[in-house]
Amino acid sequence: MKKILRTSLLLFGLAAFGQSKEDSIQFRKISTEILNNGKGYNELRELTKTIGHRLSGSEAYEKSVQWAAQKLRDAGADKVWLQDVMIPVWVRGKESLHIRTSAGNWKSIKMLSLGNSEGTGGKDVSGEIIMVKSLEEYDKLPAEKVKDKIVFFNYSFDQGNVQTFISYRDASPYRRTTASLTAKKGGKFAIIRSLSSALDDVPHTGSMRYDENISKVPAITIGNTSADELEALLKKQKVTAKLNSNCGMKGEKLSHSVIGEITGKKDQSVIVVGGHLDSWDVGEGAHDDGAGIVQSIEVLRTFKKLGIRNNHTIRAVCFANEENGTKGGKQYGKVAKDNNEKHIFAIESDAAGFSPRGISLEMDDTQRNQVKSWINLFLPYGVYNFEGKYSGSDIAPLHEMGVPTAELVPDSQRYFDIHHTEEDTFEKVSRRELLLGSAVMTQLIYMIDKNW
Amino acid sequence: MKKILRTSLLLFGLAAFGQSKEDSIQFRKISTEILNNGKGYNELRELTKTIGHRLSGSEAYEKSVQWAAQKLRDAGADKVWLQDVMIPVWVRGKESLHIRTSAGNWKSIKMLSLGNSEGTGGKDVSGEIIMVKSLEEYDKLPAEKVKDKIVFFNYSFDQGNVQTFISYRDASPYRRTTASLTAKKGGKFAIIRSLSSALDDVPHTGSMRYDENISKVPAITIGNTSADELEALLKKQKVTAKLNSNCGMKGEKLSHSVIGEITGKKDQSVIVVGGHLDSWDVGEGAHDDGAGIVQSIEVLRTFKKLGIRNNHTIRAVCFANEENGTKGGKQYGKVAKDNNEKHIFAIESDAAGFSPRGISLEMDDTQRNQVKSWINLFLPYGVYNFEGKYSGSDIAPLHEMGVPTAELVPDSQRYFDIHHTEEDTFEKVSRRELLLGSAVMTQLIYMIDKNW
Repeated sequence: MKKILRTSLLLFGLAAFGQSKEDSIQFRKISTEILNNGKGYNELRELTKTIGHRLSGSEAYEKSVQWAAQKLRDAGADKVWLQDVMIPVWVRGKESLHIRTSAGNWKSIKMLSLGNSEGTGGKDVSGEIIMVKSLEEYDKLPAEKVKDKIVFFNYSFDQGNVQTFISYRDASPYRRTTASLTAKKGGKFAIIRSLSSALDDVPHTGSMRYDENISKVPAITIGNTSADELEALLKKQKVTAKLNSNCGMKGEKLSHSVIGEITGKKDQSVIVVGGHLDSWDVGEGAHDDGAGIVQSIEVLRTFKKLGIRNNHTIRAVCFANEENGTKGGKQYGKVAKDNNEKHIFAIESDAAGFSPRGISLEMDDTQRNQVKSWINLFLPYGVYNFEGKYSGSDIAPLHEMGVPTAELVPDSQRYFDIHHTEEDTFEKVSRRELLLGSAVMTQLIYMIDKNW
Repeated sequence: MKKILRTSLLLFGLAAFGQSKEDSIQFRKISTEILNNGKGYNELRELTKTIGHRLSGSEAYEKSVQWAAQKLRDAGADKVWLQDVMIPVWVRGKESLHIRTSAGNWKSIKMLSLGNSEGTGGKDVSGEIIMVKSLEEYDKLPAEKVKDKIVFFNYSFDQGNVQTFISYRDASPYRRTTASLTAKKGGKFAIIRSLSSALDDVPHTGSMRYDENISKVPAITIGNTSADELEALLKKQKVTAKLNSNCGMKGEKLSHSVIGEITGKKDQSVIVVGGHLDSWDVGEGAHDDGAGIVQSIEVLRTFKKLGIRNNHTIRAVCFANEENGTKGGKQYGKVAKDNNEKHIFAIESDAAGFSPRGISLEMDDTQRNQVKSWINLFLPYGVYNFEGKYSGSDIAPLHEMGVPTAELVPDSQRYFDIHHTEEDTFEKVSRRELLLGSAVMTQLIYMIDKNW
């Protein structure tokens, strides 16, 4: 059935049967409390300014573990604990990229190695750059055209989509798969135009993945401005690139997710709300995903502050290792399964701290329709879009176990200007937008807790 | 009938009858063209960085008139002209505020005189500060308590409202009326806590109005941080304030609104799209209202670029003198009336360049319902809210003449952090959000032009 007809029937249905005035009042109490007294913005300032970026396995990450545990205690959690998890360690080290034309000198280009990429072992690796505009075009190149070359995957972020996540997903294969594609045809390393909506020279990192049994060549990204300039140069002449990098995987280590909960008054089946505590190693991890962390803590704080008697246990989870491993989410799912912990719902905020517009739902139709029937409670808070059917990677293991899951859907227009960059800083976060996101998640959990 | 029931019936109705696939395709063409090739962001950079703030009557405003006319020509307008309008001139001049306790030294406080306020004529005017938290509280004060004092109107912006414009309108009397209220009881000048949602020390200006036949005392604003500090001081001890300012009205002068249009192919009845070209004299007038200006120009550019044959004349109006006079809007209405120019619709963008969420409609129910029946065409662009019933001040004269009017409704969470301040700069504007706003106005005008 056409989406709009479904939505309209639901609205008609709910309007015909009326909505609980009590719920409407509770929603308002929640938003008023959080907009007036919410601690998330100050907490995000602490996290970003006193700790900063916190890559899995780094000292900063370990600091953030202690910090998050304290914030959960401050929020009034009945129980706070750390969950052990073995995580892969990747380090960046020094890195540089230079290009030159036959006539010219080496010119330094701003770059970032992709996460989980190998480096050049501190040596200079250079070669002639060949450029392709798409994977299809690359596919058609015979191996001898690629051998010993540097492949520049010059695919642009599609500005024409209204939803930027569509463009991000569309371009993601260029980040994930191109190192191995390059190696398969004998290329030396891959340069990828950043998955970026910004018209600037900021490189966007993010994880890549090597295929099994293919040699591991480096994969790096450059910002849009440099990519444009390189594209223009390559149309007229040969260009050589020289990479020197030291990044690579450095085994595993013990790390932790951080969990805090307020005990259910009726039973201890669990509702999870969470974000990932780790970040990439550039910028401050403010939107990605400091926002999700402080919003999740705010849910607990607000239930306590307003004295909402939660039927089920509400558990805020600060997942480890989402960016380059997803081990935290997997471990959480494993422990929950091993311990037979009944989970009735999980929601994640991992799409930044911008103004909320919707809630995406990964659940069966009965559950989905019930959540959608609450739309008029959410409309005054700017949340109107319940059409999404995806949820975040940290709670994917729970979803695979049959738990209904969801994700907060904020406005996406600004995100891919700063995603995974040095520009993901506290100053990019609006206090009110961040707090509204917490309010919406609190309101949803209040309804789930009450009705499920 | 409950709002939600109305909306759901409409959605049900429209879904039952179907929507034009052709319109849906045209909407997509418009957004794709603007998101990919829109010029508004670059134009806003030009306006803010080469001209900057442009108070009515200033040299910068006159520069912006020439600039806007050129942009309208570049956009492909068939006709571009300047409309004469006499505007009141207010100048700020040097100004400073100091406070001190009995023990202490004079401490400088960041401040701004309110627009249209008189100054102290370059002399020091000082007195003891008395504080009130509301107009109601002030009302109860006997005149002898206020005589020769400085009144600090310490009313806070209500963070608890989800829609920030509600809090802004709620606090507006404190900006508009307090100078005369102070004078009536013999006070020397008024200090107003800024109408600001930001937790910082940035003062927000804006216009005030003197009552007839009451002596004109100065009215100034201070930022939230200084207001908090002053509040804390006043709870414990006497505080004296000293104001020295030179602002005031300086008669009238001839200025111009700038108009460009693409001629109707069927008739020359007019559809207006506009914003105000003037700004306050701090910051860059980026969101307020550079955004509305470049978005309006983008509408013309897009109609031309896509070869959309407009039935009626589409006219982009860059109104003069909105901030401290509204003379541009009034003159436009007068000329339209005098020339018997049939106007079928007018829309303004004067609520900043943030991500669009709705369109507010000031029109009769038949027209309103028709526009609302187009909701599913707008939903993919994030526009879901057609419940507002107000429109902007520049097109209010047209509304009074019976023309159906509308206003673009963007997300409001960030606006009152920067509204009327030095922080209203180009860097606060998101390219995509700005362009999406242009797209939504273009889409609406396409529908109005086609159906009315």
